[in-house]
Amino acid sequence: MKSIKTPNSIVHFSDIAIEKLNDHLLETDYSSVFIIVDENTHEHCLPLFLPKVASQSTIEIIELESGEENKNIDTCTQVWSVLSELGADRKSLMINLGGGVLTDMGGFIAATFKRGIQFINVPTTLLSMVDASVGGKTGIDLGALKNQIGVITEPEMVLIMPEFLNTLEERQLKSGFAEMLKHGLIQNHEYWKILSKTNHYRDLSALIKTSVEIKAAVVIEDPTEEHLRKMLNFGHTLGHAIESYCLENKNIKTLLHGEAIAIGMILEGFISYRTVGLTKETAAEIKNVFNTHFGKVHFMEEDINQCIDYLKFDKKNSHGEVKFALLSNIGAPAIDILVQEETIREAFSFYLEN
Amino acid sequence: MKSIKTPNSIVHFSDIAIEKLNDHLLETDYSSVFIIVDENTHEHCLPLFLPKVASQSTIEIIELESGEENKNIDTCTQVWSVLSELGADRKSLMINLGGGVLTDMGGFIAATFKRGIQFINVPTTLLSMVDASVGGKTGIDLGALKNQIGVITEPEMVLIMPEFLNTLEERQLKSGFAEMLKHGLIQNHEYWKILSKTNHYRDLSALIKTSVEIKAAVVIEDPTEEHLRKMLNFGHTLGHAIESYCLENKNIKTLLHGEAIAIGMILEGFISYRTVGLTKETAAEIKNVFNTHFGKVHFMEEDINQCIDYLKFDKKNSHGEVKFALLSNIGAPAIDILVQEETIREAFSFYLEN
Repeated sequence: MKSIKTPNSIVHFSDIAIEKLNDHLLETDYSSVFIIVDENTHEHCLPLFLPKVASQSTIEIIELESGEENKNIDTCTQVWSVLSELGADRKSLMINLGGGVLTDMGGFIAATFKRGIQFINVPTTLLSMVDASVGGKTGIDLGALKNQIGVITEPEMVLIMPEFLNTLEERQLKSGFAEMLKHGLIQNHEYWKILSKTNHYRDLSALIKTSVEIKAAVVIEDPTEEHLRKMLNFGHTLGHAIESYCLENKNIKTLLHGEAIAIGMILEGFISYRTVGLTKETAAEIKNVFNTHFGKVHFMEEDINQCIDYLKFDKKNSHGEVKFALLSNIGAPAIDILVQEETIREAFSFYLEN
Repeated sequence: MKSIKTPNSIVHFSDIAIEKLNDHLLETDYSSVFIIVDENTHEHCLPLFLPKVASQSTIEIIELESGEENKNIDTCTQVWSVLSELGADRKSLMINLGGGVLTDMGGFIAATFKRGIQFINVPTTLLSMVDASVGGKTGIDLGALKNQIGVITEPEMVLIMPEFLNTLEERQLKSGFAEMLKHGLIQNHEYWKILSKTNHYRDLSALIKTSVEIKAAVVIEDPTEEHLRKMLNFGHTLGHAIESYCLENKNIKTLLHGEAIAIGMILEGFISYRTVGLTKETAAEIKNVFNTHFGKVHFMEEDINQCIDYLKFDKKNSHGEVKFALLSNIGAPAIDILVQEETIREAFSFYLEN
């Protein structure tokens, strides 16, 4: 499968991925290689990956705890300290083997250690393959505020190896599938239709590549999110607020990223109908498709109030206004749309009704 | 005084500095402005600065504790949290008003908050005016390891206002003077001679500009420190190790940066004589000049052993080797020089003998 270039990085797929990694390791005189894993990828992915890596340098494995609740500065401090103790230097390479939490955080750790060492991302979840793999966003959470701290730095390369998908539970696969549906909604009606009819989450290799192509095209046009790239936030303004709220509130089930933005896309589909001319039928179609894949969360009045409170911490806000990325049609995004709180409340009602 | 351009920033001097700042604030639609101070600059510098700032936006003052011991991730976390609480967004501006500790850390906080907001540095110490003001190095310490965590990002502009020097004690001024002497040693014999004969540390405006020009020229040639920029590390390999050791060891006086690198330059002057052809007389001249300005630190055998241990954490190391930036003559640096431990021990003897 052909590789996809971005301004400062390149995404390699499937079998060619390991070849390209080994070529790169041979060409580059790294002093040492550090592979960052969590307990899950240590057990399930590293045994599939490590035997294929041909490095002249010492390879050290650093394990951190999985989960969004560990995507914080304390974990970074621990890893920075371990890197220092193990003698990592500016010519060391970091390989991040894991899902989006791990590649986001690993990228940030690498980008800031000794003012930046090189890193390679090997996403192991469907979500991180289709979403976190391109664009160079790295970051960690600050309390319940997602990705509040980070930098934009691209990895040397990204390796997408769909064999890792066999190590995942269906819930994890569905979480990534939500982002793929988003790629269809914002850029490609045909792709949306194909995905809408998909009722399994395995053997998705070809579709993954379409998603990476869509995202890469957007990111290349607007790497620093001045305009076009904002369309990738469809479903994310409310999705992130819901995700943050559920993470911090112990009485409500913690949602995976894809589960939260699936709700966000239903809500923002409705808001699109109310503000930028999406038809009522399409808003209903979006709701139906996501409801087929994801169970409903029963938000109470108080939950909704608190989710709305979280909006004001969204990174994309400025001057105290919350701006949304919406859809005037499938494949036709509309960015920087100001939305009234009342409309957001109506969207929650639309989501909750049958 | 004419401004000095670097690739992504500009340094403005004296009276023109405030004018340029106010023009910039007028041109740029910042949502809010945050001025970071420590307790010293809050008391002594902010009253000289704030009344001159003409901003349409809200200005908030954030005070952090001064001192290298607070240049750590905990302080960053506090400031990130305060910024979040005060509603800072991607269109906010941060102005760092302080010495090198504050501008290094403030730059890092800004460069990582919401994946990067704009910042302006207003150095208030001689050291930060001549050293931290150009080059875009930001960073914090990790335990006793100086600047272990950071990124390279240039501020929108740097304002050098020598009036702040009147707020400083002589010990602080001398610390900056050591870096100025280094600029002469690595690039300009004439400048070294002028500074060697200087016996006061006030009214240095014109000399500050020469130092900034020397540093800017080096940084423009090699922003990411692949080759040429390494010459700026003369005196710093051992200087940093000594500084880290003294910071962590409670039985020995904590040294200011300039005091530590003054010792580092005497040591590395001797090492230059032993390895890259600096004459014995010049090594002695360097020792004499620094001894005129700085008191001697009486290192014991055990201190020396521990300083040597710190070398292995130097950011510039790779592949387990310690490489020095040395002088084959005044104005003629030699970089990437491997040095035996025995030579380092001899250098300490040279420093300690009368």
